[in-house]
Amino acid sequence: MSERKLAAVKSALASQRIETPSWAYANSGTRFKVFTQAGVPRTPQEKIDDAARVQRHTGVAPLVALHIPWDRTGDYAALAAYARQRGVRTGTVNANVFQDDDYKLGSVTHPDPAVRRKALDHLMECVDIMDATGSRDLKLWFSDGTNYPGQDDIRARQDRLSEALSAVYERLGEEQRLVLEYKLFEPAFYSTDVPDWGTSYAHCLKLGPRAQVCVDTGHHAPGTNIEFIVAFLLREGKLGAFDFNSRFYADDDLMAGAADPFQLFRILYEVRVGGGLEPEAGIAFMLDQCHNIEPKIPAIIRSVMNVQEATAKALLVDREELAKAQRAGDVLTANGLLMDAYNTDVRPLLADVREELGADRDPMAAYAASGWAARITEERVGGQQAGWGA
Amino acid sequence: MSERKLAAVKSALASQRIETPSWAYANSGTRFKVFTQAGVPRTPQEKIDDAARVQRHTGVAPLVALHIPWDRTGDYAALAAYARQRGVRTGTVNANVFQDDDYKLGSVTHPDPAVRRKALDHLMECVDIMDATGSRDLKLWFSDGTNYPGQDDIRARQDRLSEALSAVYERLGEEQRLVLEYKLFEPAFYSTDVPDWGTSYAHCLKLGPRAQVCVDTGHHAPGTNIEFIVAFLLREGKLGAFDFNSRFYADDDLMAGAADPFQLFRILYEVRVGGGLEPEAGIAFMLDQCHNIEPKIPAIIRSVMNVQEATAKALLVDREELAKAQRAGDVLTANGLLMDAYNTDVRPLLADVREELGADRDPMAAYAASGWAARITEERVGGQQAGWGA
Amino acid sequence: MSERKLAAVKSALASQRIETPSWAYANSGTRFKVFTQAGVPRTPQEKIDDAARVQRHTGVAPLVALHIPWDRTGDYAALAAYARQRGVRTGTVNANVFQDDDYKLGSVTHPDPAVRRKALDHLMECVDIMDATGSRDLKLWFSDGTNYPGQDDIRARQDRLSEALSAVYERLGEEQRLVLEYKLFEPAFYSTDVPDWGTSYAHCLKLGPRAQVCVDTGHHAPGTNIEFIVAFLLREGKLGAFDFNSRFYADDDLMAGAADPFQLFRILYEVRVGGGLEPEAGIAFMLDQCHNIEPKIPAIIRSVMNVQEATAKALLVDREELAKAQRAGDVLTANGLLMDAYNTDVRPLLADVREELGADRDPMAAYAASGWAARITEERVGGQQAGWGA
Amino acid sequence: MSERKLAAVKSALASQRIETPSWAYANSGTRFKVFTQAGVPRTPQEKIDDAARVQRHTGVAPLVALHIPWDRTGDYAALAAYARQRGVRTGTVNANVFQDDDYKLGSVTHPDPAVRRKALDHLMECVDIMDATGSRDLKLWFSDGTNYPGQDDIRARQDRLSEALSAVYERLGEEQRLVLEYKLFEPAFYSTDVPDWGTSYAHCLKLGPRAQVCVDTGHHAPGTNIEFIVAFLLREGKLGAFDFNSRFYADDDLMAGAADPFQLFRILYEVRVGGGLEPEAGIAFMLDQCHNIEPKIPAIIRSVMNVQEATAKALLVDREELAKAQRAGDVLTANGLLMDAYNTDVRPLLADVREELGADRDPMAAYAASGWAARITEERVGGQQAGWGA
Repeated sequence: MSERKLAAVKSALASQRIETPSWAYANSGTRFKVFTQAGVPRTPQEKIDDAARVQRHTGVAPLVALHIPWDRTGDYAALAAYARQRGVRTGTVNANVFQDDDYKLGSVTHPDPAVRRKALDHLMECVDIMDATGSRDLKLWFSDGTNYPGQDDIRARQDRLSEALSAVYERLGEEQRLVLEYKLFEPAFYSTDVPDWGTSYAHCLKLGPRAQVCVDTGHHAPGTNIEFIVAFLLREGKLGAFDFNSRFYADDDLMAGAADPFQLFRILYEVRVGGGLEPEAGIAFMLDQCHNIEPKIPAIIRSVMNVQEATAKALLVDREELAKAQRAGDVLTANGLLMDAYNTDVRPLLADVREELGADRDPMAAYAASGWAARITEERVGGQQAGWGA
Repeated sequence: MSERKLAAVKSALASQRIETPSWAYANSGTRFKVFTQAGVPRTPQEKIDDAARVQRHTGVAPLVALHIPWDRTGDYAALAAYARQRGVRTGTVNANVFQDDDYKLGSVTHPDPAVRRKALDHLMECVDIMDATGSRDLKLWFSDGTNYPGQDDIRARQDRLSEALSAVYERLGEEQRLVLEYKLFEPAFYSTDVPDWGTSYAHCLKLGPRAQVCVDTGHHAPGTNIEFIVAFLLREGKLGAFDFNSRFYADDDLMAGAADPFQLFRILYEVRVGGGLEPEAGIAFMLDQCHNIEPKIPAIIRSVMNVQEATAKALLVDREELAKAQRAGDVLTANGLLMDAYNTDVRPLLADVREELGADRDPMAAYAASGWAARITEERVGGQQAGWGA
Repeated sequence: MSERKLAAVKSALASQRIETPSWAYANSGTRFKVFTQAGVPRTPQEKIDDAARVQRHTGVAPLVALHIPWDRTGDYAALAAYARQRGVRTGTVNANVFQDDDYKLGSVTHPDPAVRRKALDHLMECVDIMDATGSRDLKLWFSDGTNYPGQDDIRARQDRLSEALSAVYERLGEEQRLVLEYKLFEPAFYSTDVPDWGTSYAHCLKLGPRAQVCVDTGHHAPGTNIEFIVAFLLREGKLGAFDFNSRFYADDDLMAGAADPFQLFRILYEVRVGGGLEPEAGIAFMLDQCHNIEPKIPAIIRSVMNVQEATAKALLVDREELAKAQRAGDVLTANGLLMDAYNTDVRPLLADVREELGADRDPMAAYAASGWAARITEERVGGQQAGWGA
Repeated sequence: MSERKLAAVKSALASQRIETPSWAYANSGTRFKVFTQAGVPRTPQEKIDDAARVQRHTGVAPLVALHIPWDRTGDYAALAAYARQRGVRTGTVNANVFQDDDYKLGSVTHPDPAVRRKALDHLMECVDIMDATGSRDLKLWFSDGTNYPGQDDIRARQDRLSEALSAVYERLGEEQRLVLEYKLFEPAFYSTDVPDWGTSYAHCLKLGPRAQVCVDTGHHAPGTNIEFIVAFLLREGKLGAFDFNSRFYADDDLMAGAADPFQLFRILYEVRVGGGLEPEAGIAFMLDQCHNIEPKIPAIIRSVMNVQEATAKALLVDREELAKAQRAGDVLTANGLLMDAYNTDVRPLLADVREELGADRDPMAAYAASGWAARITEERVGGQQAGWGA
């Protein structure tokens, strides 16, 4: 690789921004058990403190996403200022319309208009919070759906969904966006109102340019080719955000890149091909994970590094040679060129990038040596540990 | 059920039209083996003869779909006339751009423009045939895709696909439609160029109102809620056709309703809710199956009956009571109302409908008693049995 | 059907016993939210009261399974006596080694011997409880597994599992059994220590005749043919118990028969073929479900009825005619014979069976009319509602 | 890594033997189309010539598996001698009881005893061939199963299977083995008679020590943890052979390591842990793939290299450190140690190993430069290209 190309790769890696989710610093679990961990944050501010550690060691994670009401606070502007003081910024605002008893049968698609109104009010409140924090993106995930055939009218629920989305879209400011997540199933076990990218895409298309699709890498049916979806949405100008995590089975929410690092590489290669690594593409690269059994901060650091490694490999693909082989129909050479990049050990390259960013060459080791884990274990005693609040 | 409602149900069942595919009368198999059967047609005319038997016994299968080149003939108008003389009509024209050596790496999305041109020429020829036969629909299924990551550019293939579809769309007459099928995988094993309903929908949306999505019930990832897709497309006015068949695993192409009769019922219930049973909705209800080990004609009769039974049950759902329970959030009553219809034995009702249509109360028994199987076994000797030609 | 055959069918249906799980009367939910319901039991006794209602209306649910510690009480013999007074009996004892903080990385397969010892002690305690209640079966489900490749040694965990199972097996009395459940995934997201029937079977085989496999219908990979497993285990004499429930995606724990009634029928047909409906086969037919959004008691009644309907249809299959068609290789006739039974409306037959049992012809309506729901809503106020305790 | 350890790793890699299948040098395809390729062998001898090229360039592929009747010849001892002259040896004999018209409804499990007899005769013939060639292993894959519920008796088919396996087992010589493959589905689409490892294991257990399970990496349900199965079978002493290939969806038969290289690594890590890399473990490491669109010889070379790379990474795992982290319950460190090995670029190491074996450092380049492809394209003209013969 030429010096010029290497510099371009390093520059792209240095400018990548990976957003971490406030809730990944808190307790999480399965329906069977939430195992608590010592030192877990009790307040949004403590979550931001932890996010700041991730940023300090990695240098590419300056944003922390909020989740309302899990990060509810009296003064969001103050929270944003707190984050800036710690060297990070508050990012995407994530709405929550799935944890109130009223939402048992849905939120914005609930058969009862009063529940729909309540859910919509919450979404509007989230835009208010975005105004206060200066956030660009409102992330909408609806757990809405049904558990039994016949339980509700699938089509009528689309009408209700469409109505709510339109109301939110109209409320958005010029620089604000709505990103609509889709998910195959869970917690709804028969039908889900936004189950796939096609549904999210169709709604976003009608809403307008500030409505974009969010791809959560764990939310697909078995066998789904996620990089195809990514390539397709980029071609349509409709890819707004990623929720990175990984899975072997369902929505396992494991660390990004842990279950199928080759898939993560293929996804990031399509991001690169579609121009999605350019900052002006405006794509939010977010983690959305549950660290049920492993310590949270190092798990997030590791996830950030995994996304970086996949990105570095994607950037190493020799696209000119690849295009030649593809045009020639040379299947094995084309595949081989992609695999050459994947098989490269990019860890030294990324260590260099981190050093140039003023971060740590080995973020895992640096965090382990930092004493932060011991400190929060000691200091964060008493109070209520943050969690999903399920 | 009131007399008036019962009459409406019977009327809807009597007006249903199920199209049978010419190729299902011919030999088919797996990659491991095509088991031949005695009496299989050797010509498009003999396939039509068989389709006419299905129509005679069931009364609701007056259309037979063609597949080019499997049904290639010198005079398509004559073929259409032949069908009419047998009491059926030629229906959808199915293009085939997957069985020429040139299509090894794709047809309309092939990296080589010469291959793309050849494929497009075939699609245009199919529209010519539609002109000659008076067919309304051109069914497009593209096996195009790749087997290995890197083999070709996913995004560039979408550009090529879009170009070809536009060219075909412009060629269509005012009364003609293009229906675009999607399929998760097979024969492409890594990426498929039209893998899901979202991709088909997005292309059809750009093409215009005469481009519609075709839902093949066997072409989805495990766990996909097909009736959701049906409901969504009907709401968007973009459901053009069904390819009915059933599956336990992949694209097994078993008889419709054989693997999951409850799913078929749920699909047809959404069709009913979305107005898709009305003739003016213009939805083509087609079978697309492979009878690898069972005799073909009775398997098709059975499949037609299975679609009818699912439709009858869908029509029996008491929508008023159901809407009440849904509005009230009464999960068990709503589900119970749907299940009441499903658990009803509709075979006597359908026997009555068939009788009123002048067909047979028990089509399977009538076919068995007709002597047709013995006759074709005796007569169709010599020549080349029709098949997929793989 | 001859009178004699009909009588045999009714007799088989009348002698069927379906065990209901105490925890299904309590609150449950997903990791996102547990929606509470009014009137939910607060004590094991109240769960038994609810189970007694199910028995009263259906006549075939005289057993209620316990879960320790969810049903922990000071005097298990007294609890059993309480049940008998209400007209039911306590059945299978279900161990719980997944909800203590110590079990974060496993129970009997945990790398730490102290945790393994603790888990084993609990299993032994469960056998003590069985002694007190007179229960025949100890149901073992281990959530043990790992979330990340490398986290622990897959093989060493089998050694530890084997050791624990042997210890429990030796502790069992002559009339007691151990039934070992398997589950594909959840809560472990990478490897599970008893993930499939083969693993459970292999361990049970080594343990001896009183170790049997438990088939939970929701615990398989997509596409798994569960009735094959049932047929195979019956042939081997190794099918000990069912946990019935249904699913569209993962371990959804919906009402049995709600998601795929045809599958439930096929399973019960294999049970019949393998002699599993005979009481001397000793198979426990249990429900294991989560009624997250629907009222619990009627959901359980409905599930019992769904199992009965599938059983009735399985009994209606004309095995003599079927065997003839199978021997003749007549695929369509054989399939048709099975479907004839499935397509029969067995609800009137079951109403008769219930009447003869002294239960209600329409258990759902009878429960609705009974006033029980209103009564428990009124009476069960205050205290702590029972739930999974996650 | 210490010099001593590195030497051990290289030694293990140098002693690895990967068997290539004669049929992978021949034409293959999907049910839609078999695309032929220039230069494809027309005889078993020409297949062996191609296998010898793979061995020459890689140095670790000295065995070529036969498939009867695809490799039928008059003198098998002569064929074995031919192979030895080319520097390779004939290996596993693969039986074929799925391509005769008689096998439409099964072979050894067919309802008709005459068909069962015919199938068994073929299996016996394969043992005769083993005697002639000196092969150790008889590989049995049965496509037997059913397409429709009710078509045949699942349990009776197990009885027939068991009978046939016993007869074959008794016929085996002291040094011969039977390896029983399992497969989820295809070509049977409802039930398969050996669908999973549990079924194969149970039969092999009853047969005796010379019956072993064959794991084909493409034959599992979605989400199956294959390395768990490998670890389990090794612990039981019942893992006899691998059929390596890779898949994104069903039994795609892509090049090993192409679809999920991380999975292949995890599998080979469990092989290492279980002692399966030791020659005395007697495990056959075979490829079983279809090169439908890519040139066959280089695809096989690439596959051999992929297996080698996965093996090399598996050998690099620091098991001592890993055991420490596992015992300590340090999830992230344990996972990190495994990933360190996986993320290492082992290509230079393998180039060294090949050089020491007298093979080529870069087998793909060496083959491309060898002129063999041009030569066979020129020479192998006329005659009938070898293929699956479906």
